[in-house]
Amino acid sequence: MSKNVGVGGDREKRSSCPLACTLDLLGDRWTLLVVRDLFFGRSRFSEFQRSPEGVASNILTDRLNLLVEQGLVERRSPPSGKRATYHLTDKGRSLRPVLAAVRDWGLANIDGTAALIGADAAK
Amino acid sequence: MSKNVGVGGDREKRSSCPLACTLDLLGDRWTLLVVRDLFFGRSRFSEFQRSPEGVASNILTDRLNLLVEQGLVERRSPPSGKRATYHLTDKGRSLRPVLAAVRDWGLANIDGTAALIGADAAK
Repeated sequence: MSKNVGVGGDREKRSSCPLACTLDLLGDRWTLLVVRDLFFGRSRFSEFQRSPEGVASNILTDRLNLLVEQGLVERRSPPSGKRATYHLTDKGRSLRPVLAAVRDWGLANIDGTAALIGADAAK
Repeated sequence: MSKNVGVGGDREKRSSCPLACTLDLLGDRWTLLVVRDLFFGRSRFSEFQRSPEGVASNILTDRLNLLVEQGLVERRSPPSGKRATYHLTDKGRSLRPVLAAVRDWGLANIDGTAALIGADAAK
Protein backbone atom coordinates (compact mmCIF):
# COMPACT_ATOMS: atom_id res chain seq x y z
CA MET A 1 0.00 0.00 0.00
CA SER A 2 1.46 3.37 -0.96
CA LYS A 3 1.84 5.78 1.92
CA ASN A 4 1.34 8.85 -0.22
CA VAL A 5 -1.94 10.30 0.99
CA GLY A 6 -2.03 13.94 -0.04
CA VAL A 7 -1.45 15.59 3.31
CA GLY A 8 1.75 13.60 3.45
CA GLY A 9 2.70 14.87 0.04
CA ASP A 10 2.13 18.39 -1.22
CA ARG A 11 0.33 20.15 1.60
CA GLU A 12 2.13 21.63 4.52
CA LYS A 13 1.94 19.53 7.68
CA ARG A 14 1.28 20.94 11.15
CA SER A 15 3.75 18.40 12.50
CA SER A 16 4.98 14.90 11.71
CA CYS A 17 2.58 13.46 14.29
CA PRO A 18 0.46 10.76 12.62
CA LEU A 19 -2.52 11.79 14.73
CA ALA A 20 -2.29 15.43 13.63
CA CYS A 21 -1.80 14.47 9.97
CA THR A 22 -4.77 12.12 10.01
CA LEU A 23 -6.94 14.77 11.66
CA ASP A 24 -5.95 17.21 8.92
CA LEU A 25 -7.50 14.76 6.49
CA LEU A 26 -10.41 13.26 8.42
CA GLY A 27 -10.89 15.50 11.47
CA ASP A 28 -14.31 16.94 10.89
CA ARG A 29 -17.92 15.98 11.59
CA TRP A 30 -18.72 14.53 8.17
CA THR A 31 -15.92 12.73 6.35
CA LEU A 32 -15.99 9.53 8.40
CA LEU A 33 -19.78 9.40 8.10
CA VAL A 34 -19.41 9.19 4.32
CA VAL A 35 -16.82 6.44 4.82
CA ARG A 36 -19.28 4.68 7.16
CA ASP A 37 -21.99 4.80 4.48
CA LEU A 38 -19.56 3.36 1.93
CA PHE A 39 -18.81 0.50 4.36
CA PHE A 40 -22.58 -0.02 4.57
CA GLY A 41 -22.57 -0.62 0.81
CA ARG A 42 -24.06 2.72 -0.20
CA SER A 43 -22.55 4.03 -3.40
CA ARG A 44 -24.73 6.81 -4.83
CA PHE A 45 -24.88 10.47 -3.94
CA SER A 46 -28.61 10.20 -3.25
CA GLU A 47 -28.03 7.28 -0.89
CA PHE A 48 -25.54 9.29 1.18
CA GLN A 49 -28.04 12.13 1.33
CA ARG A 50 -30.68 9.83 2.77
CA SER A 51 -28.56 9.01 5.82
CA PRO A 52 -30.20 10.21 9.04
CA GLU A 53 -27.65 12.98 9.68
CA GLY A 54 -28.93 14.87 6.61
CA VAL A 55 -25.67 16.00 5.07
CA ALA A 56 -25.95 19.12 2.90
CA SER A 57 -25.21 18.48 -0.76
CA ASN A 58 -22.33 20.97 -0.92
CA ILE A 59 -20.63 19.33 2.06
CA LEU A 60 -21.20 15.88 0.61
CA THR A 61 -19.73 16.94 -2.75
CA ASP A 62 -16.72 18.42 -0.99
CA ARG A 63 -16.06 15.32 1.14
CA LEU A 64 -16.49 12.90 -1.77
CA ASN A 65 -14.05 14.95 -3.86
CA LEU A 66 -11.57 14.98 -0.97
CA LEU A 67 -11.86 11.23 -0.48
CA VAL A 68 -11.37 10.60 -4.22
CA GLU A 69 -8.43 13.01 -4.37
CA GLN A 70 -6.78 11.25 -1.42
CA GLY A 71 -7.17 7.81 -2.98
CA LEU A 72 -9.60 6.55 -0.34
CA VAL A 73 -12.58 6.38 -2.69
CA GLU A 74 -12.94 5.51 -6.36
CA ARG A 75 -15.52 7.32 -8.48
CA ARG A 76 -16.99 5.15 -11.25
CA SER A 77 -18.81 6.78 -14.12
CA PRO A 78 -21.24 4.41 -15.79
CA PRO A 79 -22.41 4.83 -19.40
CA SER A 80 -23.98 8.20 -20.08
CA GLY A 81 -27.26 8.99 -18.47
CA LYS A 82 -26.44 7.19 -15.25
CA ARG A 83 -25.07 8.73 -12.09
CA ALA A 84 -21.57 8.09 -10.83
CA THR A 85 -21.06 5.62 -8.03
CA TYR A 86 -18.46 5.70 -5.26
CA HIS A 87 -16.52 2.80 -3.77
CA LEU A 88 -13.87 2.43 -1.09
CA THR A 89 -10.39 1.61 -2.33
CA ASP A 90 -8.10 -0.68 -0.33
CA LYS A 91 -6.74 2.44 1.32
CA GLY A 92 -10.26 3.55 2.22
CA ARG A 93 -11.07 0.13 3.63
CA SER A 94 -7.99 0.37 5.82
CA LEU A 95 -9.97 2.92 7.88
CA ARG A 96 -12.07 0.07 9.29
CA PRO A 97 -10.21 -0.07 12.66
CA VAL A 98 -10.55 3.71 13.03
CA LEU A 99 -14.30 3.60 12.49
CA ALA A 100 -14.64 0.61 14.81
CA ALA A 101 -12.70 2.33 17.60
CA VAL A 102 -14.72 5.54 17.33
CA ARG A 103 -18.01 3.62 17.14
CA ASP A 104 -17.14 1.49 20.15
CA TRP A 105 -16.20 4.54 22.19
CA GLY A 106 -19.49 6.19 21.34
CA LEU A 107 -21.51 3.08 22.21
CA ALA A 108 -19.78 2.83 25.58
CA ASN A 109 -19.84 6.51 26.50
CA ILE A 110 -22.70 8.37 24.87
CA ASP A 111 -26.24 7.78 26.02
CA GLY A 112 -28.81 6.86 23.42
CA THR A 113 -26.42 5.59 20.77
CA ALA A 114 -27.12 2.36 18.95
CA ALA A 115 -25.29 0.64 16.14
CA LEU A 116 -27.11 1.32 12.86
CA ILE A 117 -28.31 -1.45 10.64
CA GLY A 118 -25.42 -2.64 8.60
CA ALA A 119 -23.03 -1.80 11.42
CA ASP A 120 -21.51 -5.25 11.04
CA ALA A 121 -19.89 -3.90 7.90
CA ALA A 122 -17.64 -1.69 10.02
CA LYS A 123 -16.48 -4.46 12.38
CA MET B 1 -18.51 4.16 33.79
CA SER B 2 -21.42 6.50 33.27
CA LYS B 3 -22.51 6.80 29.67
CA ASN B 4 -23.75 10.33 30.05
CA VAL B 5 -21.36 12.37 27.92
CA GLY B 6 -23.05 15.67 27.11
CA VAL B 7 -23.88 15.08 23.47
CA GLY B 8 -25.82 12.08 24.67
CA GLY B 9 -27.62 14.21 27.19
CA ASP B 10 -28.91 17.69 26.57
CA ARG B 11 -27.80 18.55 23.07
CA GLU B 12 -29.70 17.45 20.02
CA LYS B 13 -28.18 14.49 18.25
CA ARG B 14 -27.84 14.23 14.48
CA SER B 15 -28.70 10.56 14.76
CA SER B 16 -28.29 7.70 17.21
CA CYS B 17 -25.20 6.52 15.32
CA PRO B 18 -22.30 6.22 17.80
CA LEU B 19 -19.88 7.36 15.11
CA ALA B 20 -21.88 10.54 14.41
CA CYS B 21 -22.33 11.28 18.12
CA THR B 22 -18.62 10.85 18.82
CA LEU B 23 -17.72 13.08 15.87
CA ASP B 24 -20.05 15.75 17.26
CA LEU B 25 -17.85 15.74 20.34
CA LEU B 26 -14.37 15.03 18.98
CA GLY B 27 -14.61 15.51 15.21
CA ASP B 28 -12.31 18.46 14.64
CA ARG B 29 -8.62 19.04 14.06
CA TRP B 30 -7.66 19.91 17.64
CA THR B 31 -9.53 18.12 20.41
CA LEU B 32 -7.77 14.76 20.07
CA LEU B 33 -4.39 16.53 19.95
CA VAL B 34 -5.08 17.95 23.41
CA VAL B 35 -6.04 14.46 24.55
CA ARG B 36 -2.78 13.17 23.02
CA ASP B 37 -0.77 15.74 25.00
CA LEU B 38 -2.57 14.73 28.19
CA PHE B 39 -1.61 11.10 27.49
CA PHE B 40 1.97 12.33 27.08
CA GLY B 41 1.79 13.61 30.66
CA ARG B 42 1.45 17.29 29.82
CA SER B 43 -0.90 19.07 32.18
CA ARG B 44 -0.40 22.84 31.88
CA PHE B 45 -1.86 25.28 29.39
CA SER B 46 1.64 26.45 28.45
CA GLU B 47 2.75 22.87 27.79
CA PHE B 48 -0.11 22.29 25.37
CA GLN B 49 0.79 25.52 23.62
CA ARG B 50 4.37 24.34 23.08
CA SER B 51 3.24 21.31 21.07
CA PRO B 52 4.52 21.47 17.50
CA GLU B 53 1.10 22.12 15.95
CA GLY B 54 0.98 25.54 17.59
CA VAL B 55 -2.59 25.63 18.82
CA ALA B 56 -4.03 29.13 19.24
CA SER B 57 -4.85 30.01 22.83
CA ASN B 58 -8.54 30.66 22.17
CA ILE B 59 -8.92 27.25 20.51
CA LEU B 60 -7.02 25.57 23.32
CA THR B 61 -9.21 27.26 25.94
CA ASP B 62 -12.32 26.18 24.09
CA ARG B 63 -11.23 22.56 23.75
CA LEU B 64 -10.09 22.26 27.37
CA ASN B 65 -13.42 23.66 28.55
CA LEU B 66 -15.27 21.21 26.30
CA LEU B 67 -13.24 18.27 27.59
CA VAL B 68 -13.84 19.30 31.22
CA GLU B 69 -17.54 19.87 30.57
CA GLN B 70 -17.84 16.40 29.00
CA GLY B 71 -16.11 14.70 31.92
CA LEU B 72 -13.07 13.63 29.92
CA VAL B 73 -10.66 15.97 31.69
CA GLU B 74 -10.40 17.17 35.26
CA ARG B 75 -9.21 20.71 35.97
CA ARG B 76 -7.25 21.02 39.21
CA SER B 77 -6.74 24.42 40.78
CA PRO B 78 -3.70 24.50 43.05
CA PRO B 79 -3.30 27.04 45.87
CA SER B 80 -3.58 30.61 44.70
CA GLY B 81 -0.84 31.98 42.54
CA LYS B 82 -0.33 28.74 40.64
CA ARG B 83 -1.85 27.81 37.33
CA ALA B 84 -4.51 25.15 36.95
CA THR B 85 -3.48 21.75 35.68
CA TYR B 86 -5.47 19.34 33.54
CA HIS B 87 -5.67 15.56 33.82
CA LEU B 88 -7.50 12.81 31.97
CA THR B 89 -10.34 11.16 33.84
CA ASP B 90 -11.07 7.46 33.43
CA LYS B 91 -13.49 8.45 30.70
CA GLY B 92 -10.80 10.46 28.99
CA ARG B 93 -8.35 7.59 29.22
CA SER B 94 -10.92 5.36 27.55
CA LEU B 95 -10.10 7.23 24.34
CA ARG B 96 -6.77 5.38 24.16
CA PRO B 97 -7.93 2.87 21.49
CA VAL B 98 -9.33 5.70 19.37
CA LEU B 99 -6.03 7.58 19.44
CA ALA B 100 -4.09 4.40 18.76
CA ALA B 101 -6.24 3.51 15.74
CA VAL B 102 -5.97 7.00 14.24
CA ARG B 103 -2.21 7.14 14.90
CA ASP B 104 -1.64 3.71 13.35
CA TRP B 105 -3.61 4.66 10.26
CA GLY B 106 -1.55 7.82 9.85
CA LEU B 107 1.73 5.99 10.29
CA ALA B 108 0.74 3.43 7.65
CA ASN B 109 -0.79 5.82 5.14
CA ILE B 110 0.69 9.30 5.35
CA ASP B 111 4.22 9.95 4.20
CA GLY B 112 6.58 11.64 6.61
CA THR B 113 4.73 10.81 9.78
CA ALA B 114 6.62 9.50 12.80
CA ALA B 115 5.47 8.67 16.29
CA LEU B 116 6.34 11.55 18.61
CA ILE B 117 8.38 11.03 21.73
CA GLY B 118 6.12 9.73 24.41
CA ALA B 119 3.97 7.99 21.82
CA ASP B 120 4.16 4.83 23.91
CA ALA B 121 1.77 6.56 26.25
CA ALA B 122 -0.99 6.19 23.67
CA LYS B 123 -0.41 2.48 23.02
